[in-house]
Amino acid sequence: MQLARVIGTVVSTVKNDLLRSRKLLVIQPVDRWLADSGKTLVAVDSVGAGEGEIIIWCRGKESSFPFAPDEVPTDCTITGIVDSVNTPSKVQGSVGHEGA
Amino acid sequence: MQLARVIGTVVSTVKNDLLRSRKLLVIQPVDRWLADSGKTLVAVDSVGAGEGEIIIWCRGKESSFPFAPDEVPTDCTITGIVDSVNTPSKVQGSVGHEGA
Amino acid sequence: MQLARVIGTVVSTVKNDLLRSRKLLVIQPVDRWLADSGKTLVAVDSVGAGEGEIIIWCRGKESSFPFAPDEVPTDCTITGIVDSVNTPSKVQGSVGHEGA
Amino acid sequence: MQLARVIGTVVSTVKNDLLRSRKLLVIQPVDRWLADSGKTLVAVDSVGAGEGEIIIWCRGKESSFPFAPDEVPTDCTITGIVDSVNTPSKVQGSVGHEGA
Amino acid sequence: MQLARVIGTVVSTVKNDLLRSRKLLVIQPVDRWLADSGKTLVAVDSVGAGEGEIIIWCRGKESSFPFAPDEVPTDCTITGIVDSVNTPSKVQGSVGHEGA
Repeated sequence: MQLARVIGTVVSTVKNDLLRSRKLLVIQPVDRWLADSGKTLVAVDSVGAGEGEIIIWCRGKESSFPFAPDEVPTDCTITGIVDSVNTPSKVQGSVGHEGA
Repeated sequence: MQLARVIGTVVSTVKNDLLRSRKLLVIQPVDRWLADSGKTLVAVDSVGAGEGEIIIWCRGKESSFPFAPDEVPTDCTITGIVDSVNTPSKVQGSVGHEGA
Repeated sequence: MQLARVIGTVVSTVKNDLLRSRKLLVIQPVDRWLADSGKTLVAVDSVGAGEGEIIIWCRGKESSFPFAPDEVPTDCTITGIVDSVNTPSKVQGSVGHEGA
Repeated sequence: MQLARVIGTVVSTVKNDLLRSRKLLVIQPVDRWLADSGKTLVAVDSVGAGEGEIIIWCRGKESSFPFAPDEVPTDCTITGIVDSVNTPSKVQGSVGHEGA
Repeated sequence: MQLARVIGTVVSTVKNDLLRSRKLLVIQPVDRWLADSGKTLVAVDSVGAGEGEIIIWCRGKESSFPFAPDEVPTDCTITGIVDSVNTPSKVQGSVGHEGA
């Protein structure tokens, strides 16, 4: 999954039946410092996220699991609202490494 | 899902049976300002989209859901026609962040 | 799906049983002007494509649908041979857009 | 799968039910020399990994297999902790190659 | 699928049960001229490939098919060992193309 910020909404009247009454949000992926990173996407909401919130989103078929047994044609779903991100600066773990 | 503009069509006589009578459209992904972004794709239509329209499209296996129970071999399907995109400029949400 | 040109073949004697007797073709993705774009891939053929032909190909699990009920381990399948690509130059569709 | 280093955690109170009680870790993909490569992701843990460890992670629907029969909406799961990576410098294998 | 060269191995003692006794290989994707292209990955072997060999690999859920009915959490599986790659230099096929 990746971190992103909710930055807006998309209005679509003509859409696939399986998407009806689903909220479509514009999200901007962000990196671990919450800075913009990569291009915006249109996500289906499954947790009640709102504009300005930092969220985690999931892509692929697995992003339709929150709506099962409906098979919602989404490849980008918001699965959680983030409270905090913790990345201590000294993490430098390594393992045995042999070769070039 | 992502935003895109329908820019043309593809004609294919010899194709997989599961794609027969499906409309194949050339789409150009666009960003939140509707400017071209990324390379063109060939999408299967599920909503009656036409050239010039801004649409949302879905990739992956989930893009075959609109055609169930047919298992259409598509990884790019148009799932909605966009009426408007709203991204207020002041959205700058953040969360607790600790570490480097 | 994406457009590509068939540019060669791959010979593999030792391969997964589910790939036996499948034709493996080297394809070069192309853009809407049929110019090379992106790196070459190895595709399984489902329509009888030959070298030099422009084709559409599908990736992901859905690219195994043409071979059902066999679950062929392919993530890149040729699903159609292209007759023509039509992208009129004046397509500039837009929608309501609010915000930055 | 890819190699990555666990660099932190994400706290999320409001999340999809299927993600409840799953540990969410921030991972930084690394290359074969264990140097940072690519952007950070949020992974679900399935093996008890901790900060600083080098791990292998899997993306896509298949990343939900470790949690079956639960259909956890994850596209990034840690599936192993790495003891060592061995890439001898002299590996230069080739095969018959004909053409341009 | 894509071409790659097997360049090493990964040792992992603590891993998901479904990966137990599977050989994990480090692979370097290569282009049609067998030159390195893109970043290294960790693949599960299904054909008995060894270091130095040129192989084809498959990503996504479909990469778990060779292990069915086991649902191995892999998104990168070696599905064949390559004998030769043939890409004649004069392949320049085209189709009708109209528009910009």
